[in-house]
Amino acid sequence: MKIGIIGSGAIGLYYGARLQRIGQEVHFLARTDFESIRKNGIQIRAGDGDFTLNPVNVHKSSETIGVCDLVIVAMKATSNHAVESLTRPLVGEATTLLTFQNGLSNDRFLTGLFPGHRVLNGLCFICLNRVDPGVVDCFILGSISIGEFKAKASLFTQQLKDIFNEAGMNCSVYDDLQLAQWKKLVWNVPFNGLTIAGGGITTQDILEDSGLSQLVLDLMNEIREGAAALGMSISSDFPQEQIEKTRGMGPYKPSSVIDFLQKKPVEVEAIWGEPLRQAQAAGVQLPKLEMLYHLLRITCSGDRLARA
Amino acid sequence: MKIGIIGSGAIGLYYGARLQRIGQEVHFLARTDFESIRKNGIQIRAGDGDFTLNPVNVHKSSETIGVCDLVIVAMKATSNHAVESLTRPLVGEATTLLTFQNGLSNDRFLTGLFPGHRVLNGLCFICLNRVDPGVVDCFILGSISIGEFKAKASLFTQQLKDIFNEAGMNCSVYDDLQLAQWKKLVWNVPFNGLTIAGGGITTQDILEDSGLSQLVLDLMNEIREGAAALGMSISSDFPQEQIEKTRGMGPYKPSSVIDFLQKKPVEVEAIWGEPLRQAQAAGVQLPKLEMLYHLLRITCSGDRLARA
Repeated sequence: MKIGIIGSGAIGLYYGARLQRIGQEVHFLARTDFESIRKNGIQIRAGDGDFTLNPVNVHKSSETIGVCDLVIVAMKATSNHAVESLTRPLVGEATTLLTFQNGLSNDRFLTGLFPGHRVLNGLCFICLNRVDPGVVDCFILGSISIGEFKAKASLFTQQLKDIFNEAGMNCSVYDDLQLAQWKKLVWNVPFNGLTIAGGGITTQDILEDSGLSQLVLDLMNEIREGAAALGMSISSDFPQEQIEKTRGMGPYKPSSVIDFLQKKPVEVEAIWGEPLRQAQAAGVQLPKLEMLYHLLRITCSGDRLARA
Repeated sequence: MKIGIIGSGAIGLYYGARLQRIGQEVHFLARTDFESIRKNGIQIRAGDGDFTLNPVNVHKSSETIGVCDLVIVAMKATSNHAVESLTRPLVGEATTLLTFQNGLSNDRFLTGLFPGHRVLNGLCFICLNRVDPGVVDCFILGSISIGEFKAKASLFTQQLKDIFNEAGMNCSVYDDLQLAQWKKLVWNVPFNGLTIAGGGITTQDILEDSGLSQLVLDLMNEIREGAAALGMSISSDFPQEQIEKTRGMGPYKPSSVIDFLQKKPVEVEAIWGEPLRQAQAAGVQLPKLEMLYHLLRITCSGDRLARA
């Protein structure tokens, strides 16, 4: 399968490298890190074994990649304005698109750009950090859930799951993608949000503070309420299970807080704004999410950084 | 009347200078700014006329002030641990204590230190900035409300009001001090809080943003709910009136956000923690205040500043 990866951050490099290692034809689009990856390849350090790939098919421009069977969009949702021009040269008649982006509505966005194409969503439950150009550390192997936007999983999606599992990605297929997305938000909303709102603290700092731990639980339950208003049921045990898993991760900084500390754009609308708006449209108020969203909107704006 | 002023920030200097100007015997306790004030006096720039006082009775130590008729505590509540030792030398049998500090419970704290003494609370509705040692700019003359802790206003308090008005302080006496305090929180909770949580923005930045303006209104209404649970009624028009007043203030930075930006302690417990706890003890949940409080607790801790 010819696979194009748009974006060479931690997610794109990590999954792309795993797919190349099992013999798939993978092409990486890289901009700032192009020279370094061309020269040094990609290095992955993970619990099931470190590996280096050199050479890799790395491209400065989408034109040299050409049409692919599968395009994986692995850029931040904050760069969605650039997705169309970067992706279009890879999209032929039978191309499938798969978004690995955080938050809600990226699938709808891709469907809008490429109507009639199969669009998949991949939810990555994983702890990665891109520590250098082309170098990714994986702290927790985690898992990935894929599903189709507004459709039951097709045979293609089932086959993709098998390929992903051969690549060591621990993949499962969700029939209800929206539910899977909201379950992911149960983690992302409090932990990505409070680590930023706390000025760059870790998940461990949060869980060692009883007031912040309570906020985590309250935010998780607000997401459950939002999901319920949209017709999805998330078990009442789920928040506590997520908290226990997070304790096992030690002093982790989610990708959003790393972006924040490096003064890069943060996916405020996709992770906090969109679920709040969807819940409000369904008639429920999520006051703590609302507070967090508006504060993050200000805290993460370049405007604020210039002003303070 | 012999008046001792503990603390030479904006509030202490401003009100002390006004009282000295009408002939009261005022003594200022200053630490870092002692030399500057001793040499240059105090300079006030205000809408009803600028003035400079030189010399002023400025002291490095409370011992040289001696017993006063009235002691005004004008330090931040975050320095309350130092209040006892700084204040005790000024307190004789008939001394009255008056706190000009932000937030709740400072009156209870003073009563605990000096049981049997008359303790007054002064709520300062004013926009001041101490721009240099001994130099205070007053943006809005505003007003001050005084009242007695757990007692109706005595003749002494009525007389004090007259003196304060002679000094141009626009003073009134409240019988229900607790109500007055909660009404002041209606302003302080959202504006002091969101200017900090926004990373150092102004009241105008907040009011020009529709999401943050809604949070202001929501927080104000939560304070009304908290007050109601404690048996006090604040009019439903009051929040909107406060917002309109604030529009007239232009791009104002409340004292808390200036402290925050200068990495000085912020009165997080007095302004946000204590009203939240009192409301929770009375059986109401104030979710947006709860969120804001815990975030400010982290954002304003020296710990975070060291870590980020």
